[in-house]
Amino acid sequence: MGGTFDPIHYGHLLAAEESMRRLSLDRIVFVPTGAPPHKINREVASSEDRYAMTLLATAGVKEFSVSRVEIDRAGRSHTVDTLTEFLKTPGRSLFFITGLDAMLGIASWRDYARLPALCTLVTATRPGYPLSGIDGLPPEIREGLKVVEIPQFAISSTEIRERVRDGRGIRFLVPHLVEQYIESRGLYKGGMGQA
Amino acid sequence: MGGTFDPIHYGHLLAAEESMRRLSLDRIVFVPTGAPPHKINREVASSEDRYAMTLLATAGVKEFSVSRVEIDRAGRSHTVDTLTEFLKTPGRSLFFITGLDAMLGIASWRDYARLPALCTLVTATRPGYPLSGIDGLPPEIREGLKVVEIPQFAISSTEIRERVRDGRGIRFLVPHLVEQYIESRGLYKGGMGQA
Repeated sequence: MGGTFDPIHYGHLLAAEESMRRLSLDRIVFVPTGAPPHKINREVASSEDRYAMTLLATAGVKEFSVSRVEIDRAGRSHTVDTLTEFLKTPGRSLFFITGLDAMLGIASWRDYARLPALCTLVTATRPGYPLSGIDGLPPEIREGLKVVEIPQFAISSTEIRERVRDGRGIRFLVPHLVEQYIESRGLYKGGMGQA
Repeated sequence: MGGTFDPIHYGHLLAAEESMRRLSLDRIVFVPTGAPPHKINREVASSEDRYAMTLLATAGVKEFSVSRVEIDRAGRSHTVDTLTEFLKTPGRSLFFITGLDAMLGIASWRDYARLPALCTLVTATRPGYPLSGIDGLPPEIREGLKVVEIPQFAISSTEIRERVRDGRGIRFLVPHLVEQYIESRGLYKGGMGQA
């Protein structure tokens, strides 16, 4: 499951859980992006902070783990490189899960047309998020794409950051350890975000 | 905050948190119903199980507590009695919070017309739940009613029970301790529910 996870919240965890169940997956590897090439319009929390929060959120779940592959890679992260890295372990059948907002930008990703040969593409959506954008995806992506709707959770990382910035609480929206981490590190306090 | 809490889930906790913040309340007392007079169309988990789950879900939050007042009362529970009990402690300004589906049945509650004199009535709603029913409430209730919408969480206890019964997971929908309690006690397994 790829994402910025800035920060990870219950919506991500529920999307992972539901995808695992509906697609009969053995496990979910959370892959926080390193330097995300597609989010240059705002500053994001540091890779290590996002890795730490993802670890704290998933530590108690035996089917969940977190990979440092994109964080430790020099330079920008590309999904095609990450999938190629994962496929070095034989016998794996890969599913790449990401949010619909990210998936809709796939035509700008490096070598995107190679992705369907490497994995099954899966996108998780929130209620109210229009699915119409899927029609505009390249045909080779659209054809094999699996859509998992998560009706219970209409939360976004953007909202979490806004709530922290405005001094509103985020209790019960993120796991307790993540809430404590955000507070202790002072993440998302200023309008500038964290470098 | 009154409810059956059968079982309590993150939607309840978030509703309590949001109500506390928006209405500037000092604390929230969760009051699980004893023998709920208005849910006779299905069997509910035992009062002690529902009390235990509510306790497990709220134990770590200093502003939250759980009252046994309705569980320990002989016979059926009525909100008017509970509010009168709470008002025996002087200096308290009471808000009674419950879900919109419960609030819409208020005209059938004992001495309902006395409630606005005892407390401020608050109802929490989920996204997609029609607000139109409020227009049909008795005028003395409708006038002072505060509505708190919780946009992030579209989950219900009904769905939790169905998921348990169907063997689907409830991870990340209820606090982990509640999930473990439901499993260890075998709650919601059969179509009959628990006596």
